[in-house]
Amino acid sequence: MSRIGVRSFGGVDDPPGDPVNTTVLPAPVPSAVTADARVRSAALEEEVRRSPGRFRVLTGDRPTGRLHLGHYFGTLHNRVRLQDLGVELFVIVADYQVLTDRDVADDLPGHVEELVLDHLAIGVDPARSTIFTHSAVPALNQLMLPFLSLVSVAELNRNPTVKDEIAHSRQSAVSGLMFTYPVHQAADILFCKANLVPVGQDQLPHLEVTRTIARRFNARYGDGVFPEPEALLSDAPLLLGTDGTKMSKSRGNAVTLAADADETVRLIRGAKTDSERHIAYDPVRRPEVSSLLLLAALCQGRTPVEVADGIGSGGAAALKRTVAEAVNEHLAPIRARRAAYARDRAHLREVLREGNERARAVADATLAEVRTVMNSRY
Amino acid sequence: MSRIGVRSFGGVDDPPGDPVNTTVLPAPVPSAVTADARVRSAALEEEVRRSPGRFRVLTGDRPTGRLHLGHYFGTLHNRVRLQDLGVELFVIVADYQVLTDRDVADDLPGHVEELVLDHLAIGVDPARSTIFTHSAVPALNQLMLPFLSLVSVAELNRNPTVKDEIAHSRQSAVSGLMFTYPVHQAADILFCKANLVPVGQDQLPHLEVTRTIARRFNARYGDGVFPEPEALLSDAPLLLGTDGTKMSKSRGNAVTLAADADETVRLIRGAKTDSERHIAYDPVRRPEVSSLLLLAALCQGRTPVEVADGIGSGGAAALKRTVAEAVNEHLAPIRARRAAYARDRAHLREVLREGNERARAVADATLAEVRTVMNSRY
Repeated sequence: MSRIGVRSFGGVDDPPGDPVNTTVLPAPVPSAVTADARVRSAALEEEVRRSPGRFRVLTGDRPTGRLHLGHYFGTLHNRVRLQDLGVELFVIVADYQVLTDRDVADDLPGHVEELVLDHLAIGVDPARSTIFTHSAVPALNQLMLPFLSLVSVAELNRNPTVKDEIAHSRQSAVSGLMFTYPVHQAADILFCKANLVPVGQDQLPHLEVTRTIARRFNARYGDGVFPEPEALLSDAPLLLGTDGTKMSKSRGNAVTLAADADETVRLIRGAKTDSERHIAYDPVRRPEVSSLLLLAALCQGRTPVEVADGIGSGGAAALKRTVAEAVNEHLAPIRARRAAYARDRAHLREVLREGNERARAVADATLAEVRTVMNSRY
Repeated sequence: MSRIGVRSFGGVDDPPGDPVNTTVLPAPVPSAVTADARVRSAALEEEVRRSPGRFRVLTGDRPTGRLHLGHYFGTLHNRVRLQDLGVELFVIVADYQVLTDRDVADDLPGHVEELVLDHLAIGVDPARSTIFTHSAVPALNQLMLPFLSLVSVAELNRNPTVKDEIAHSRQSAVSGLMFTYPVHQAADILFCKANLVPVGQDQLPHLEVTRTIARRFNARYGDGVFPEPEALLSDAPLLLGTDGTKMSKSRGNAVTLAADADETVRLIRGAKTDSERHIAYDPVRRPEVSSLLLLAALCQGRTPVEVADGIGSGGAAALKRTVAEAVNEHLAPIRARRAAYARDRAHLREVLREGNERARAVADATLAEVRTVMNSRY
């Protein structure tokens, strides 16, 4: 499944197919739909700041390994930001979306634990936010059944991710789980009546399936049961890995949150740059150098140009020193928290147990309501 | 969905598409596969008689209305027989398979109640057998997820019922629920580890999907978690409705178990016959008369030829009197029980409540085992 690359909600997994978007520039807006989504997203961002209590966010990831700086600046950071604004946050660990990935499935508990650790480390607070796993919430999964009745096979076939997969593989390789993934995602989002989902623009079609299902369910069974969740589009900075290609767990070209300071220095010291001594921010002509500048800038809350000006003619060595220091400084408190949590396995299990329990209570209540409006309580 | 005509496990719903099998002769054996299944079925029948305690049966119906004589002699009768031999019986009321049938969905509780009443009336004993509804067992429904990962879209497309439906309709009419129906059926059968499923031969492909899923699950996650359930093929007598076409709820040409004696007489008096005065059993040349003879024979435990000999030249009127009397006599105790149960709504709800509770306990235990072998207990 890692090959298939279905991303969870706003997660920054490896992209499907070949590495693309290997520039630090934001991807071009491909259509009027996305342009509209951006305008709406900006308005939503305003509303979130004004009335955070009106929003419930569903987000999450497939448990495929430790998260890295690309994940952190791409999506994790935004989760904590939303939580700290006062939005209610549900973080799903999508363990049913890695079943066909043998490498992951062989150490599922380990991967789940790493994901929970990373979230606690960055500041997701289990007292305010709910971290839970797919497989622990039967009532959520049951929603698949009524939801599947509301979409056609033709609609599922039109899903871009599914189409892409069918195009890139023999069709027999597409599992029933992959095919129905957008419906399962609808269950993930709607079980807790999330009304806001942080997504990248490539995930808009998936969210559209969820919105369609919510609309059809309400039209058929009862107005206002489900919200039509809206997309909070994020302009994830596209950071390159140390080899100059897309940052990715599987390529070993990424600094993980869990890495220690020495490993970080070593990785960044080995990063690909170019032969120009003068360091300047020029993402099109000098993508590797510019990505490093962006990374330092993100860590220091400055602009890449400011960082470049500070280095000037110091060359690649000075650039890498600056970046490694910036990363290590920024991650130091996160890493300290991570280490502390990692020493207390019992607490970690307790966080997940409590999260699952809370998710089950929410799912049970939603399913009870669904069964009532569907007239199936006997 | 009634149009789509997906049958549940051995249920005798309206067939898909146009009326077929309008003869009282058993349908011809179409293939070596079915021949093998028949041989195996006969052996299983022997084993059931010898060691009924080794078998658990899953069977059931979609709740689409009152059951009639076609259902009774086709499958219901066999359920009680298996129960009374000492086999453990699970009867599923497949309420998630009627969601797209608006007429049914509008009075789901009524339809579910009728189905439970019919089962109690014929002698399904809730102390020994478990009657439950789909929508009340989340852990059963959750099994859909891991099971969907074990079948490909190509395999689902090959399913004959799905192929038939795609051929008979615009593809957009096939819902995701219909498409994944064989996987949901696998969850229905495997949640309680049923090892025996009474089916008609047209349902063998569906059961094959269940067997495949059980085999693949065991191979991947742990030997012996699920049995590979076997088909108990039944030679359902194909009774015609009073209009000479296939007996069907929707055509109003069937005597229901719930009908009273007068209504039964009236319906059978209006049955189509032919102009020959002498009554003889000749299914090919005289299908309507022969179907009536078969019905009386089934009620009286005689052969159709014996019934015909008793009428001789009495003509259609004498035939219909004989049939109506035979039906009313056979159904009298069933109808008396049905009426008694129908007066006690509270008891009826209690039966279903207890059945659902038992099914949930079984499903929870199976899901716990599944999560353990899948390494997804954290």
